[in-house]
Amino acid sequence: MTKTNAGRFFEDYAVGDVITHAVPRTIKMGERALYHALYPARHALHSSDQFAQSCGLPFSPLNDLVTFHTVFGKTVPDVSLNAVANLGYAEGRWITPLWPGDTITSTSEVIGVKQNSNGKSGVVWVRTTGRNQHDEVLMSYVRWVMVRKRGDGEAPEPMIPELASAVSANDLVIPQGLNFTGYDFALAGEPHRLADYAAGEVIDHVDGVTIEEAEHMLATRLWQNTAKVHFDATNRPDGKRLIYGGHVISLARALSFNGLANAQMIVALNGGAHANPCFAGDTVRAWSEVLDLAETSAPGVGAIRLRLVATKGAAGVLRGDDGKYHPDVLLDLDYWALMPL
Amino acid sequence: MTKTNAGRFFEDYAVGDVITHAVPRTIKMGERALYHALYPARHALHSSDQFAQSCGLPFSPLNDLVTFHTVFGKTVPDVSLNAVANLGYAEGRWITPLWPGDTITSTSEVIGVKQNSNGKSGVVWVRTTGRNQHDEVLMSYVRWVMVRKRGDGEAPEPMIPELASAVSANDLVIPQGLNFTGYDFALAGEPHRLADYAAGEVIDHVDGVTIEEAEHMLATRLWQNTAKVHFDATNRPDGKRLIYGGHVISLARALSFNGLANAQMIVALNGGAHANPCFAGDTVRAWSEVLDLAETSAPGVGAIRLRLVATKGAAGVLRGDDGKYHPDVLLDLDYWALMPL
Amino acid sequence: MTKTNAGRFFEDYAVGDVITHAVPRTIKMGERALYHALYPARHALHSSDQFAQSCGLPFSPLNDLVTFHTVFGKTVPDVSLNAVANLGYAEGRWITPLWPGDTITSTSEVIGVKQNSNGKSGVVWVRTTGRNQHDEVLMSYVRWVMVRKRGDGEAPEPMIPELASAVSANDLVIPQGLNFTGYDFALAGEPHRLADYAAGEVIDHVDGVTIEEAEHMLATRLWQNTAKVHFDATNRPDGKRLIYGGHVISLARALSFNGLANAQMIVALNGGAHANPCFAGDTVRAWSEVLDLAETSAPGVGAIRLRLVATKGAAGVLRGDDGKYHPDVLLDLDYWALMPL
Repeated sequence: MTKTNAGRFFEDYAVGDVITHAVPRTIKMGERALYHALYPARHALHSSDQFAQSCGLPFSPLNDLVTFHTVFGKTVPDVSLNAVANLGYAEGRWITPLWPGDTITSTSEVIGVKQNSNGKSGVVWVRTTGRNQHDEVLMSYVRWVMVRKRGDGEAPEPMIPELASAVSANDLVIPQGLNFTGYDFALAGEPHRLADYAAGEVIDHVDGVTIEEAEHMLATRLWQNTAKVHFDATNRPDGKRLIYGGHVISLARALSFNGLANAQMIVALNGGAHANPCFAGDTVRAWSEVLDLAETSAPGVGAIRLRLVATKGAAGVLRGDDGKYHPDVLLDLDYWALMPL
Repeated sequence: MTKTNAGRFFEDYAVGDVITHAVPRTIKMGERALYHALYPARHALHSSDQFAQSCGLPFSPLNDLVTFHTVFGKTVPDVSLNAVANLGYAEGRWITPLWPGDTITSTSEVIGVKQNSNGKSGVVWVRTTGRNQHDEVLMSYVRWVMVRKRGDGEAPEPMIPELASAVSANDLVIPQGLNFTGYDFALAGEPHRLADYAAGEVIDHVDGVTIEEAEHMLATRLWQNTAKVHFDATNRPDGKRLIYGGHVISLARALSFNGLANAQMIVALNGGAHANPCFAGDTVRAWSEVLDLAETSAPGVGAIRLRLVATKGAAGVLRGDDGKYHPDVLLDLDYWALMPL
Repeated sequence: MTKTNAGRFFEDYAVGDVITHAVPRTIKMGERALYHALYPARHALHSSDQFAQSCGLPFSPLNDLVTFHTVFGKTVPDVSLNAVANLGYAEGRWITPLWPGDTITSTSEVIGVKQNSNGKSGVVWVRTTGRNQHDEVLMSYVRWVMVRKRGDGEAPEPMIPELASAVSANDLVIPQGLNFTGYDFALAGEPHRLADYAAGEVIDHVDGVTIEEAEHMLATRLWQNTAKVHFDATNRPDGKRLIYGGHVISLARALSFNGLANAQMIVALNGGAHANPCFAGDTVRAWSEVLDLAETSAPGVGAIRLRLVATKGAAGVLRGDDGKYHPDVLLDLDYWALMPL
């Protein structure tokens, strides 16, 4: 009888189960500094207390993806340890900003299971919720993964949850007090407001960043994501470690500053696919497509729905004639961000 | 006459000398964030202010090894610069937790000297003490190193200190207020309490982490340890830098979470050997052997004495038939940690 | 019409223009911890709140070069994007220390332009000023760069600013309250005071540090310097990324602790040249030459003018017989620092 965690297998998930993920985490300014060292993040609202205050917030919140990575990292020992693939995201919403000093805990409810026809694995859907020390919801999202079966027992009753194809603009939660009527476009870095963007517009974010093993491991550890594929070179003959998909999300999002400097806060994750694995040595570029534009109830605050694509090749490429992702595409992410009207 | 520090030679140590090590260091939350980026540290008491508070502490202290590394780093210019080998540790005790904002200073008393029979080097024993800005002792430990002689003068009177083979359970100092009676095992990550462990039990911590040059240099610099062997690739034909032994200690201790998640705080260092050098590219794994179990005077708080072995090969291996460490073994550490009864 | 920043060309600079650089940045203790991880920085005044207090300051300010890098980083999208070369610095002065929690903004005034005879590029001089959230000047410096022309329009009227060859000792600004009369040389690490140095004296700082790609990219991102040459391996056939010159400045300055431990704060940048490009794998060493010594109006506080040379070869080398920098020389920096009398 071992004391170490062997992880859950497909049989260990039953619809309705709620899993309390271990190791709460207090996040402060050190994590913010590290976020800036790890990613070329320049969005002003996450860079300057004064800029955040000019937008009605008490001070600069942590980057929204810090919340996501930390909440996600806690689920790894319970959800991903025997996972074969991370299949998708849906219905992600940021509800409360993460302030320095907050402590994050994370729980997941199993909302769907479906055994694969091969009898050796199955798909598990979980709705994961991150909370702060006041038990306020920081964010929640649905993720589904393919998980190995332990044995050859019977398949459970399949239950496939109905998931929205995108979070409705009406359901976006705007941080309390947020006000873009006095927004300083010069300090923010670009003059473009919501009205300057049109659905269908494609933006090449130009810059490329080559990833080193040390960088993605520092980042992934920072979120206490301990999945061994990210750290153990003996897992592959070439000694490379599979880069945590969230590292590519943060990298691409930071690169998108160049052309989307005013898409200040992420408020919803509509969907996403880690189209191909990313490895050290890859040079990541990003491009975005504007999917939708909306107003919000907050003064001066609009919302922009974006497809964010990370690629290790040329910008603009997405799928081949066969409908499959081009081998260069690393990430295809669909999200809502807030932008001055 | 040079202004740079050439380091002390064997002749420069006399029993009774007290060395004030330079460069006090204020440690705050940035160092804590970096510790999480550098090591896969997940022990809840060092991760969450709320968890620490539920254990009777005012908030989450810095990892105990941050204290050790910082105190140790300060000794390097005075003790290790002309050292040939780091031979051992003994009688290490953590007395006061390190709180964010504390400033660490470090002194060492020479407690033993013995010239080697070759007349070219000798062994020096020092008892190093780290203090905070209130002059409270944070920790102290004995270390002995082999140091080159400058010249060929006469050998000093040999003085070999008597050192305890282990810190007695009765001498462990429990942080003020620590109370594990309301301990949350679910949030901590594992259900095992002290009574679930037995002396002689061996735990394979399963996970492996491959080290990059950038990572160990970032870590070693963070502790202001400037020993050139860790940073200068021109010291060896293969361009590799010898990894600071403390980096392996922190890595192995973090990996030991998987099976020892409730061994929350290190309170004593009974002994330790850096069995073989560690280099970038090595994949470090860890295993532990339970050596002893004890109660303490604090409510709900037990103590577990552990051997922690880091290896770049398979877990479980320690010594060959010749009694020497197996070439894969990097570290053999003997410590006490606190665990809920 | 693209929304991304294509950068300014030579034609886009007119003498008298003031450019507001984007993305204000709040700096706290996380950046300080990272500075210690990235560079072997040991100067006590930047390491310990208590040491800084013993020198009359409220607590330990951020390293002076954190101010420089952050102010500089903000200028990159407006000044360096189409720059061919970074030609020089002059008249740099630190006016107000950077305290944790301060927010930095940056502006540049164009003070000179001169088209090159080839008609394809020109030199632009800017005076860059960094301010904190109270609109106090943190520092200012002049930099000149060679910038590509967009088209083949006529040359502007040349305007070459007159720049001081060095900041006069009388113009050095001493941080308010600074007092070295109670200076603790033992804690600072070396016994040498201003009177122990003589103009012409050369100090070999002995230690060498080999740079990894991950390290310089982490550092350069931390200052929100997004110049693509530092991050994109596809820019060169050998996949190496050109290391930000400021990374070499910080590295050499940190190495200079060994022999100049009491040159505590940088207060002026008289000039500087990035003599040769630096790449990952280079082992950086440093040597200093004492250029001048001066008293200041503050109690116990002297000033030392230093040439700081970073080299990837042996210390001491600077120029060849042809007057050109030796190929091993990376940096030749001329600065004033404060030192106890």
